[in-house]
Amino acid sequence: MTVITGTLALATLGNTDILDITGQVLHLVEQSGLRTGIVTVFCPSSTSGLTTVEFEPGAVADLKSLFENLVPTKREYSHNATWEDGNGHAHMRASLLGSSLTVPFVEKALTLGTWQQIIYVDFDIRPRQRELVVQMVGE
Amino acid sequence: MTVITGTLALATLGNTDILDITGQVLHLVEQSGLRTGIVTVFCPSSTSGLTTVEFEPGAVADLKSLFENLVPTKREYSHNATWEDGNGHAHMRASLLGSSLTVPFVEKALTLGTWQQIIYVDFDIRPRQRELVVQMVGE
Amino acid sequence: MTVITGTLALATLGNTDILDITGQVLHLVEQSGLRTGIVTVFCPSSTSGLTTVEFEPGAVADLKSLFENLVPTKREYSHNATWEDGNGHAHMRASLLGSSLTVPFVEKALTLGTWQQIIYVDFDIRPRQRELVVQMVGE
Repeated sequence: MTVITGTLALATLGNTDILDITGQVLHLVEQSGLRTGIVTVFCPSSTSGLTTVEFEPGAVADLKSLFENLVPTKREYSHNATWEDGNGHAHMRASLLGSSLTVPFVEKALTLGTWQQIIYVDFDIRPRQRELVVQMVGE
Repeated sequence: MTVITGTLALATLGNTDILDITGQVLHLVEQSGLRTGIVTVFCPSSTSGLTTVEFEPGAVADLKSLFENLVPTKREYSHNATWEDGNGHAHMRASLLGSSLTVPFVEKALTLGTWQQIIYVDFDIRPRQRELVVQMVGE
Repeated sequence: MTVITGTLALATLGNTDILDITGQVLHLVEQSGLRTGIVTVFCPSSTSGLTTVEFEPGAVADLKSLFENLVPTKREYSHNATWEDGNGHAHMRASLLGSSLTVPFVEKALTLGTWQQIIYVDFDIRPRQRELVVQMVGE
Protein backbone atom coordinates (compact mmCIF):
# COMPACT_ATOMS: atom_id res chain seq x y z
CA MET A 1 0.00 0.00 0.00
CA THR A 2 1.23 3.45 -0.81
CA VAL A 3 0.09 7.02 -1.46
CA ILE A 4 0.91 8.84 -4.69
CA THR A 5 -0.02 12.51 -5.09
CA GLY A 6 -0.24 14.16 -8.48
CA THR A 7 -1.60 17.41 -9.84
CA LEU A 8 -3.67 18.25 -12.86
CA ALA A 9 -3.38 21.68 -14.49
CA LEU A 10 -6.40 23.14 -16.27
CA ALA A 11 -7.16 26.32 -18.19
CA THR A 12 -10.85 27.16 -17.84
CA LEU A 13 -13.16 29.80 -19.28
CA GLY A 14 -15.01 30.25 -15.97
CA ASN A 15 -18.77 30.98 -15.93
CA THR A 16 -19.72 27.36 -15.22
CA ASP A 17 -17.21 26.00 -17.72
CA ILE A 18 -17.49 22.18 -17.65
CA LEU A 19 -14.39 20.12 -18.47
CA ASP A 20 -14.15 16.36 -18.94
CA ILE A 21 -11.05 15.39 -16.93
CA THR A 22 -11.52 11.61 -17.09
CA GLY A 23 -8.57 11.00 -19.41
CA GLN A 24 -6.22 13.08 -17.30
CA VAL A 25 -7.24 11.36 -14.05
CA LEU A 26 -6.83 7.95 -15.70
CA HIS A 27 -3.40 8.96 -16.97
CA LEU A 28 -2.28 9.80 -13.42
CA VAL A 29 -3.63 6.47 -12.14
CA GLU A 30 -1.74 4.62 -14.88
CA GLN A 31 1.45 6.55 -14.13
CA SER A 32 1.22 5.81 -10.38
CA GLY A 33 2.17 2.18 -10.81
CA LEU A 34 -0.72 1.17 -8.54
CA ARG A 35 -3.15 -1.51 -9.70
CA THR A 36 -6.07 -1.19 -7.27
CA GLY A 37 -7.25 1.49 -4.86
CA ILE A 38 -9.02 4.81 -4.69
CA VAL A 39 -8.27 8.05 -6.44
CA THR A 40 -9.42 11.27 -4.77
CA VAL A 41 -9.71 14.32 -7.02
CA PHE A 42 -9.81 17.53 -4.99
CA CYS A 43 -10.14 21.15 -6.07
CA PRO A 44 -8.32 23.59 -3.79
CA SER A 45 -10.77 26.34 -4.67
CA SER A 46 -13.98 27.82 -3.29
CA THR A 47 -15.50 28.65 -6.69
CA SER A 48 -15.36 25.30 -8.49
CA GLY A 49 -16.41 21.71 -7.98
CA LEU A 50 -16.44 18.12 -9.20
CA THR A 51 -19.01 15.50 -10.14
CA THR A 52 -19.74 12.93 -12.83
CA VAL A 53 -22.04 13.21 -15.85
CA GLU A 54 -22.61 11.72 -19.28
CA PHE A 55 -20.39 14.22 -21.06
CA GLU A 56 -22.39 15.01 -24.19
CA PRO A 57 -23.40 18.52 -25.33
CA GLY A 58 -27.04 18.17 -24.26
CA ALA A 59 -26.32 17.10 -20.68
CA VAL A 60 -23.53 19.69 -20.39
CA ALA A 61 -25.95 22.45 -21.44
CA ASP A 62 -28.59 21.10 -19.04
CA LEU A 63 -26.11 21.19 -16.18
CA LYS A 64 -25.35 24.87 -16.84
CA SER A 65 -29.11 25.59 -16.86
CA LEU A 66 -29.60 23.60 -13.67
CA PHE A 67 -27.05 25.68 -11.77
CA GLU A 68 -28.56 28.90 -13.13
CA ASN A 69 -31.98 27.72 -11.92
CA LEU A 70 -30.85 26.55 -8.48
CA VAL A 71 -28.34 29.33 -7.76
CA PRO A 72 -29.06 32.29 -10.05
CA THR A 73 -26.26 34.63 -11.11
CA LYS A 74 -28.40 37.71 -10.54
CA ARG A 75 -29.72 37.02 -7.04
CA GLU A 76 -28.37 39.34 -4.30
CA TYR A 77 -25.45 37.79 -2.46
CA SER A 78 -23.98 39.13 0.78
CA HIS A 79 -20.59 37.97 -0.45
CA ASN A 80 -20.86 40.42 -3.36
CA ALA A 81 -22.05 43.26 -1.12
CA THR A 82 -18.91 42.81 1.00
CA TRP A 83 -16.25 42.00 -1.56
CA GLU A 84 -17.71 43.50 -4.74
CA ASP A 85 -16.20 40.72 -6.80
CA GLY A 86 -19.53 39.60 -8.28
CA ASN A 87 -18.92 35.88 -7.87
CA GLY A 88 -21.20 35.13 -4.91
CA HIS A 89 -23.18 32.64 -7.03
CA ALA A 90 -19.92 30.86 -7.91
CA HIS A 91 -19.13 30.30 -4.23
CA MET A 92 -22.61 28.93 -3.54
CA ARG A 93 -22.61 26.61 -6.56
CA ALA A 94 -19.21 25.27 -5.50
CA SER A 95 -20.33 24.57 -1.93
CA LEU A 96 -23.44 22.81 -3.19
CA LEU A 97 -21.66 20.64 -5.76
CA GLY A 98 -18.68 19.75 -3.56
CA SER A 99 -14.93 19.96 -4.01
CA SER A 100 -13.96 16.29 -3.64
CA LEU A 101 -14.64 13.13 -5.65
CA THR A 102 -13.39 9.63 -4.80
CA VAL A 103 -13.44 6.91 -7.46
CA PRO A 104 -12.23 3.31 -7.00
CA PHE A 105 -9.86 1.87 -9.62
CA VAL A 106 -9.29 -1.82 -10.31
CA GLU A 107 -6.46 -3.21 -12.45
CA LYS A 108 -5.51 0.37 -13.40
CA ALA A 109 -9.00 1.13 -14.78
CA LEU A 110 -11.40 3.64 -13.24
CA THR A 111 -14.66 1.93 -12.24
CA LEU A 112 -16.77 4.49 -14.12
CA GLY A 113 -19.86 3.52 -16.10
CA THR A 114 -19.76 3.39 -19.88
CA TRP A 115 -21.49 6.75 -20.23
CA GLN A 116 -20.04 8.39 -17.15
CA GLN A 117 -17.24 10.95 -17.11
CA ILE A 118 -15.51 12.90 -14.32
CA ILE A 119 -16.06 16.64 -14.76
CA TYR A 120 -14.54 19.74 -13.25
CA VAL A 121 -16.88 22.75 -13.16
CA ASP A 122 -15.41 26.22 -12.83
CA PHE A 123 -18.11 28.59 -11.60
CA ASP A 124 -15.86 31.65 -11.26
CA ILE A 125 -16.66 34.61 -13.48
CA ARG A 126 -13.45 34.81 -15.48
CA PRO A 127 -10.96 32.45 -17.12
CA ARG A 128 -8.71 30.78 -14.57
CA GLN A 129 -5.60 28.62 -14.43
CA ARG A 130 -6.46 25.83 -12.01
CA GLU A 131 -4.50 23.03 -10.41
CA LEU A 132 -6.36 20.04 -8.97
CA VAL A 133 -4.93 17.54 -6.48
CA VAL A 134 -5.18 13.91 -7.60
CA GLN A 135 -4.19 11.47 -4.88
CA MET A 136 -4.14 7.70 -5.15
CA VAL A 137 -4.13 5.29 -2.19
CA GLY A 138 -3.66 1.69 -3.25
CA GLU A 139 -1.38 -1.21 -4.02
CA MET B 1 -3.14 -2.29 4.89
CA THR B 2 -4.91 -3.73 1.90
CA VAL B 3 -7.60 -3.02 -0.68
CA ILE B 4 -10.64 -5.27 -1.11
CA THR B 5 -13.10 -4.62 -3.95
CA GLY B 6 -16.62 -6.02 -3.94
CA THR B 7 -19.79 -5.44 -5.90
CA LEU B 8 -23.37 -5.05 -4.88
CA ALA B 9 -26.17 -6.05 -7.26
CA LEU B 10 -29.49 -4.23 -7.10
CA ALA B 11 -32.81 -4.47 -8.91
CA THR B 12 -34.48 -1.06 -8.94
CA LEU B 13 -37.82 0.33 -10.09
CA GLY B 14 -36.25 3.51 -11.47
CA ASN B 15 -38.12 6.84 -11.23
CA THR B 16 -36.23 8.00 -8.14
CA ASP B 17 -36.46 4.60 -6.48
CA ILE B 18 -34.69 4.86 -3.10
CA LEU B 19 -33.05 1.73 -1.66
CA ASP B 20 -31.50 1.27 1.78
CA ILE B 21 -28.20 -0.51 1.06
CA THR B 22 -26.70 -0.20 4.56
CA GLY B 23 -26.98 -3.90 5.38
CA GLN B 24 -25.37 -4.96 2.11
CA VAL B 25 -22.47 -2.52 2.51
CA LEU B 26 -21.93 -3.68 6.09
CA HIS B 27 -21.97 -7.31 4.94
CA LEU B 28 -19.17 -6.59 2.45
CA VAL B 29 -17.14 -4.83 5.15
CA GLU B 30 -17.58 -7.81 7.48
CA GLN B 31 -16.61 -10.25 4.72
CA SER B 32 -13.46 -8.26 3.87
CA GLY B 33 -11.63 -9.33 7.00
CA LEU B 34 -10.61 -5.70 7.60
CA ARG B 35 -11.24 -4.14 11.00
CA THR B 36 -10.71 -0.43 10.38
CA GLY B 37 -10.62 1.78 7.31
CA ILE B 38 -12.81 3.45 4.73
CA VAL B 39 -15.42 1.98 2.44
CA THR B 40 -16.16 3.81 -0.80
CA VAL B 41 -19.47 3.01 -2.47
CA PHE B 42 -19.50 4.09 -6.11
CA CYS B 43 -22.21 3.88 -8.76
CA PRO B 44 -20.86 3.38 -12.28
CA SER B 45 -23.88 5.14 -13.75
CA SER B 46 -24.86 8.63 -14.89
CA THR B 47 -28.52 8.35 -13.83
CA SER B 48 -28.24 7.34 -10.17
CA GLY B 49 -26.55 8.49 -6.99
CA LEU B 50 -25.78 7.92 -3.32
CA THR B 51 -26.30 9.72 -0.03
CA THR B 52 -27.45 9.07 3.54
CA VAL B 53 -30.87 9.65 5.08
CA GLU B 54 -33.05 8.51 7.97
CA PHE B 55 -34.70 5.73 6.01
CA GLU B 56 -38.33 6.00 7.09
CA PRO B 57 -41.33 6.37 4.74
CA GLY B 58 -41.83 10.09 5.43
CA ALA B 59 -38.25 11.14 4.69
CA VAL B 60 -38.11 8.85 1.65
CA ALA B 61 -41.26 10.49 0.24
CA ASP B 62 -39.85 13.94 1.03
CA LEU B 63 -36.65 13.12 -0.83
CA LYS B 64 -38.61 12.18 -3.97
CA SER B 65 -40.52 15.48 -3.70
CA LEU B 66 -37.31 17.40 -3.18
CA PHE B 67 -35.78 16.08 -6.40
CA GLU B 68 -39.02 16.79 -8.30
CA ASN B 69 -38.91 20.36 -6.96
CA LEU B 70 -35.23 20.99 -7.65
CA VAL B 71 -34.97 19.15 -10.97
CA PRO B 72 -38.48 18.71 -12.44
CA THR B 73 -39.23 15.75 -14.69
CA LYS B 74 -41.16 17.94 -17.15
CA ARG B 75 -38.67 20.75 -17.71
CA GLU B 76 -37.13 20.89 -21.21
CA TYR B 77 -33.75 19.17 -21.31
CA SER B 78 -31.29 19.43 -24.18
CA HIS B 79 -30.27 15.85 -23.43
CA ASN B 80 -33.80 14.71 -24.30
CA ALA B 81 -33.93 16.84 -27.45
CA THR B 82 -30.77 15.10 -28.68
CA TRP B 83 -31.26 11.52 -27.52
CA GLU B 84 -35.06 11.31 -27.15
CA ASP B 85 -34.68 8.99 -24.19
CA GLY B 86 -36.67 11.21 -21.82
CA ASN B 87 -34.31 10.84 -18.87
CA GLY B 88 -32.63 14.26 -18.93
CA HIS B 89 -33.86 14.98 -15.41
CA ALA B 90 -32.34 11.67 -14.22
CA HIS B 91 -28.90 12.72 -15.47
CA MET B 92 -29.15 16.11 -13.75
CA ARG B 93 -30.36 14.66 -10.44
CA ALA B 94 -27.51 12.15 -10.50
CA SER B 95 -24.87 14.84 -11.12
CA LEU B 96 -26.28 16.98 -8.32
CA LEU B 97 -26.49 14.16 -5.76
CA GLY B 98 -23.13 12.58 -6.59
CA SER B 99 -22.02 9.06 -7.46
CA SER B 100 -19.58 8.37 -4.63
CA LEU B 101 -19.89 7.99 -0.86
CA THR B 102 -17.03 7.28 1.56
CA VAL B 103 -17.80 6.04 5.09
CA PRO B 104 -15.21 5.18 7.76
CA PHE B 105 -15.56 1.85 9.57
CA VAL B 106 -14.08 0.98 12.97
CA GLU B 107 -13.92 -2.55 14.45
CA LYS B 108 -15.97 -3.82 11.47
CA ALA B 109 -18.84 -1.39 12.19
CA LEU B 110 -19.85 1.48 9.91
CA THR B 111 -19.61 4.81 11.75
CA LEU B 112 -23.16 5.80 10.77
CA GLY B 113 -25.50 7.55 13.18
CA THR B 114 -28.32 5.66 14.86
CA TRP B 115 -30.94 7.04 12.47
CA GLN B 116 -28.73 7.24 9.39
CA GLN B 117 -28.76 4.83 6.47
CA ILE B 118 -26.85 4.64 3.18
CA ILE B 119 -29.19 4.94 0.22
CA TYR B 120 -28.89 4.33 -3.48
CA VAL B 121 -31.24 6.46 -5.61
CA ASP B 122 -32.04 5.34 -9.15
CA PHE B 123 -33.35 8.31 -11.12
CA ASP B 124 -33.63 6.52 -14.46
CA ILE B 125 -37.12 6.19 -15.94
CA ARG B 126 -37.40 2.41 -16.02
CA PRO B 127 -36.50 -0.58 -13.85
CA ARG B 128 -32.79 -1.34 -13.97
CA GLN B 129 -30.37 -4.03 -12.88
CA ARG B 130 -27.52 -2.13 -11.24
CA GLU B 131 -24.12 -3.11 -9.91
CA LEU B 132 -22.33 -0.83 -7.46
CA VAL B 133 -18.63 -0.91 -6.64
CA VAL B 134 -17.84 -1.25 -2.92
CA GLN B 135 -14.17 -0.84 -2.16
CA MET B 136 -12.54 -1.04 1.26
CA VAL B 137 -9.09 0.33 2.12
CA GLY B 138 -7.99 -0.61 5.62
CA GLU B 139 -6.25 -3.01 7.95
CA MET C 1 0.43 2.77 5.58
CA THR C 2 -1.92 2.92 8.51
CA VAL C 3 -5.37 4.06 9.60
CA ILE C 4 -5.88 6.51 12.45
CA THR C 5 -9.39 7.34 13.64
CA GLY C 6 -10.18 10.43 15.68
CA THR C 7 -13.28 12.29 16.73
CA LEU C 8 -14.16 15.94 16.80
CA ALA C 9 -16.68 17.26 19.34
CA LEU C 10 -18.80 20.27 18.45
CA ALA C 11 -21.46 22.33 20.19
CA THR C 12 -23.81 23.80 17.58
CA LEU C 13 -26.74 26.20 17.64
CA GLY C 14 -28.70 24.18 15.05
CA ASN C 15 -30.89 25.96 12.48
CA THR C 16 -28.26 25.78 9.73
CA ASP C 17 -25.44 26.74 12.06
CA ILE C 18 -22.22 26.78 10.00
CA LEU C 19 -18.93 26.01 11.77
CA ASP C 20 -15.41 26.28 10.36
CA ILE C 21 -13.74 23.02 11.45
CA THR C 22 -10.57 23.37 9.37
CA GLY C 23 -8.27 23.99 12.32
CA GLN C 24 -9.64 21.01 14.25
CA VAL C 25 -9.29 18.66 11.27
CA LEU C 26 -5.74 19.88 10.66
CA HIS C 27 -4.90 19.35 14.34
CA LEU C 28 -6.02 15.70 14.10
CA VAL C 29 -3.94 15.22 10.94
CA GLU C 30 -0.89 16.71 12.67
CA GLN C 31 -1.43 14.51 15.75
CA SER C 32 -1.75 11.35 13.64
CA GLY C 33 1.94 11.22 12.83
CA LEU C 34 1.08 10.62 9.15
CA ARG C 35 2.71 12.77 6.50
CA THR C 36 0.65 12.06 3.39
CA GLY C 37 -2.75 10.53 2.72
CA ILE C 38 -6.45 11.26 2.86
CA VAL C 39 -8.59 12.45 5.71
CA THR C 40 -12.28 11.57 5.64
CA VAL C 41 -14.56 13.68 7.81
CA PHE C 42 -17.90 11.98 8.40
CA CYS C 43 -20.97 13.11 10.32
CA PRO C 44 -22.90 10.26 11.94
CA SER C 45 -26.13 12.22 11.72
CA SER C 46 -29.08 12.56 9.36
CA THR C 47 -29.65 16.28 10.02
CA SER C 48 -26.23 17.76 9.29
CA GLY C 49 -23.61 17.79 6.56
CA LEU C 50 -20.19 18.86 5.34
CA THR C 51 -18.73 20.90 2.49
CA THR C 52 -16.12 23.60 1.84
CA VAL C 53 -16.63 27.34 1.47
CA GLU C 54 -14.76 30.62 1.76
CA PHE C 55 -15.62 31.12 5.41
CA GLU C 56 -16.42 34.84 5.56
CA PRO C 57 -19.65 36.36 6.92
CA GLY C 58 -21.11 37.15 3.49
CA ALA C 59 -20.70 33.65 2.05
CA VAL C 60 -21.89 32.08 5.30
CA ALA C 61 -25.07 34.19 5.20
CA ASP C 62 -25.53 33.34 1.51
CA LEU C 63 -25.26 29.63 2.26
CA LYS C 64 -28.04 29.87 4.86
CA SER C 65 -30.21 31.71 2.30
CA LEU C 66 -29.40 29.13 -0.35
CA PHE C 67 -30.62 26.25 1.80
CA GLU C 68 -33.77 28.20 2.74
CA ASN C 69 -34.42 28.77 -0.98
CA LEU C 70 -33.73 25.19 -2.10
CA VAL C 71 -35.31 23.38 0.85
CA PRO C 72 -37.67 25.76 2.68
CA THR C 73 -38.32 25.35 6.39
CA LYS C 74 -42.05 25.91 5.95
CA ARG C 75 -42.80 23.45 3.14
CA GLU C 76 -44.95 20.43 4.12
CA TYR C 77 -42.79 17.41 4.88
CA SER C 78 -44.12 13.87 5.29
CA HIS C 79 -41.40 13.32 7.88
CA ASN C 80 -42.99 16.00 10.07
CA ALA C 81 -46.50 14.63 9.56
CA THR C 82 -45.30 11.26 10.87
CA TRP C 83 -42.90 12.23 13.63
CA GLU C 84 -44.09 15.73 14.52
CA ASP C 85 -40.53 16.80 15.25
CA GLY C 86 -40.58 19.68 12.76
CA ASN C 87 -37.14 19.01 11.30
CA GLY C 88 -38.13 17.51 7.92
CA HIS C 89 -36.26 20.28 6.11
CA ALA C 90 -33.14 19.47 8.16
CA HIS C 91 -33.18 15.87 6.96
CA MET C 92 -33.57 16.92 3.32
CA ARG C 93 -30.82 19.55 3.48
CA ALA C 94 -28.48 16.99 5.04
CA SER C 95 -29.17 14.39 2.33
CA LEU C 96 -28.62 16.99 -0.38
CA LEU C 97 -25.37 18.36 1.06
CA GLY C 98 -23.86 15.00 2.00
CA SER C 99 -22.39 13.60 5.20
CA SER C 100 -18.84 12.78 4.05
CA LEU C 101 -15.88 14.85 2.86
CA THR C 102 -12.49 13.49 1.81
CA VAL C 103 -9.48 15.82 1.60
CA PRO C 104 -5.93 14.82 0.63
CA PHE C 105 -3.07 15.96 2.86
CA VAL C 106 0.59 16.26 1.86
CA GLU C 107 3.49 16.78 4.29
CA LYS C 108 0.94 17.19 7.13
CA ALA C 109 -0.84 20.07 5.37
CA LEU C 110 -4.40 19.90 4.05
CA THR C 111 -4.49 20.57 0.29
CA LEU C 112 -7.18 23.25 0.67
CA GLY C 113 -7.14 26.46 -1.34
CA THR C 114 -6.10 29.72 0.27
CA TRP C 115 -9.70 30.90 0.67
CA GLN C 116 -11.26 27.50 1.27
CA GLN C 117 -12.35 26.12 4.64
CA ILE C 118 -14.02 22.87 5.73
CA ILE C 119 -17.42 23.54 7.25
CA TYR C 120 -19.87 21.49 9.27
CA VAL C 121 -23.52 22.57 8.85
CA ASP C 122 -26.03 21.59 11.51
CA PHE C 123 -29.54 21.82 10.04
CA ASP C 124 -31.37 20.48 13.08
CA ILE C 125 -33.80 22.84 14.80
CA ARG C 126 -32.17 23.02 18.22
CA PRO C 127 -28.67 23.26 19.71
CA ARG C 128 -26.86 19.93 19.58
CA GLN C 129 -23.73 18.30 20.91
CA ARG C 130 -22.19 16.56 17.89
CA GLU C 131 -19.28 14.20 17.40
CA LEU C 132 -17.75 13.81 13.95
CA VAL C 133 -15.55 10.94 12.81
CA VAL C 134 -12.20 12.02 11.36
CA GLN C 135 -10.27 9.14 9.83
CA MET C 136 -6.88 9.34 8.18
CA VAL C 137 -5.43 6.73 5.82
CA GLY C 138 -1.83 7.41 4.92
CA GLU C 139 1.84 6.96 5.63
